[in-house]
Amino acid sequence: MTINVLFAARADRWATYEAPLRAAFAEKGLQDVHLATDIPPEAVDYIIYSPNSAVQDFTPYTRAKAVLNLWAGVEGIVDNPTLTQPLARMVDTGLRQGMVEWVTGHTLRHHLNTDLHVLGQDGQWRSYVPPLATDRPVTVLGLGELGGACAEALAGLGFPVTGWSRSQKQIAGVTCLAGAEGLPRALETAQILILLLPLTGQTENLLDADRIARMPAGAVVINPGRGPLIDDGALLAALDSGQLGHATLDVFREEPLPPAHPFWAHPRVTVTPHIASETRPTTAARVIAENIRRGEARENLLYLVDRARGY
Amino acid sequence: MTINVLFAARADRWATYEAPLRAAFAEKGLQDVHLATDIPPEAVDYIIYSPNSAVQDFTPYTRAKAVLNLWAGVEGIVDNPTLTQPLARMVDTGLRQGMVEWVTGHTLRHHLNTDLHVLGQDGQWRSYVPPLATDRPVTVLGLGELGGACAEALAGLGFPVTGWSRSQKQIAGVTCLAGAEGLPRALETAQILILLLPLTGQTENLLDADRIARMPAGAVVINPGRGPLIDDGALLAALDSGQLGHATLDVFREEPLPPAHPFWAHPRVTVTPHIASETRPTTAARVIAENIRRGEARENLLYLVDRARGY
Repeated sequence: MTINVLFAARADRWATYEAPLRAAFAEKGLQDVHLATDIPPEAVDYIIYSPNSAVQDFTPYTRAKAVLNLWAGVEGIVDNPTLTQPLARMVDTGLRQGMVEWVTGHTLRHHLNTDLHVLGQDGQWRSYVPPLATDRPVTVLGLGELGGACAEALAGLGFPVTGWSRSQKQIAGVTCLAGAEGLPRALETAQILILLLPLTGQTENLLDADRIARMPAGAVVINPGRGPLIDDGALLAALDSGQLGHATLDVFREEPLPPAHPFWAHPRVTVTPHIASETRPTTAARVIAENIRRGEARENLLYLVDRARGY
Repeated sequence: MTINVLFAARADRWATYEAPLRAAFAEKGLQDVHLATDIPPEAVDYIIYSPNSAVQDFTPYTRAKAVLNLWAGVEGIVDNPTLTQPLARMVDTGLRQGMVEWVTGHTLRHHLNTDLHVLGQDGQWRSYVPPLATDRPVTVLGLGELGGACAEALAGLGFPVTGWSRSQKQIAGVTCLAGAEGLPRALETAQILILLLPLTGQTENLLDADRIARMPAGAVVINPGRGPLIDDGALLAALDSGQLGHATLDVFREEPLPPAHPFWAHPRVTVTPHIASETRPTTAARVIAENIRRGEARENLLYLVDRARGY
């Protein structure tokens, strides 16, 4: 029997994903798959989904067995009241590896202060020798797929790494703290702070004025997670006062970040355009195909979202 | 009996090294050490040495059992005809770790093209997503203490790493090539090339026009090794033609690099002021103390230089 798979993402994504998806279906032995961007809702078996697609009402998809998100973040769909189907997050090894590279690169950029030279090619010999990584404590907030992998990579380079998450985790070489009482301790030592929390009601504005004040003076914030994790006004005030030395921000409340936003002009902010990592079509297509295979075999789906928890 | 240890480095180094050296001597159980910057040559047992010190004639040091170099590089002393005493290089774990951090940081900087954003905070949303490290071949020339450690760290981050050295080496996860016939193959795939060779008659101008031409178009050169490893004119020509995309240079034929040198103004060159790594007093002092302990116990010294080979 034909398996009807609706591709519901922005139009430009179809060209990127069609071939990798067909290849992944074949690889997983899925025969007779009808993959298209336009299928009558009542005939759809699976929805491959981006939260910015045109599909916002899931009511007509009466037979759909699962919504398979193309993104790691699900905050654009998890509260949709019309969604009654099981929802799976994207956990893509390519996305995870890209995130590790971006976070490691920007952590080393701030640790070594390479901007001093990149922005200072003026003939002045500025002999700044940074401390070793072993003397530079780093904290990662969020120890999921992405945060955990980043914490591990940074510990591997010699940084003393503290990780914090809602529930207690165990990662070799990383000091893992948890819960409300663990957060102040995680912030206290954070010369470099990396935000990789999911966006939920509990994490919105998590990095506010009080929590920034707990960090060491001159600390650096790196946010490849989600824009609303930070109280933007508190961040700007702390950068102005010197309580924070720099912020490198990849995600924002509004994207693209408007050209007039104060982040662009602030000398202590580096804006990057939501590139810390993205889903890679080849590896992501395999995750989607594996979940369709599991759905057809009535096995448990991978990476199901706990809708009460929000991620 | 008193052990007379002459500290022969630039005057400003004495303040940095005196306390760590005394602490390391105590740690190694060396008693009755007379450490000073001024000891009659004929009474000196060991010389702690920097090639830029005032001591250039070793003839009067008739009783000295060893010259203990504070630097990893020995090209400023190895050809000194007055040197008849054994010469030991500095192999400092702090220096090695600092080098790994600098090389990893700048490799990721070029891999991720972070300069695009650091230099482009103008309100334009430039969505460049780099390939994964697994698709970015890196080559390290020189697989000694420093090059070997850097090759290993980069392989650990997922880069396909090729290493090249005079004699064949074995490093887990690194494709090791050797000798004259291995060099062209090491260059062919080098999207990022890292120079960590010792400076000898054989390696001077090793990276010349012919060898640059063998690299992939748009490749990046990172030189934290020694300035004269590169033919500067050939490098500038290749940057102008686009055969090379960028050069990040930490070492130069003349240091500090004169403000009028074309490297400073070239848009495809990043100059850093010989900071890729430096000897760290605490860890280096332990290496010196260990060699004095060995000398007194008539054991073999660590890190002896093969003067015929030049390093």
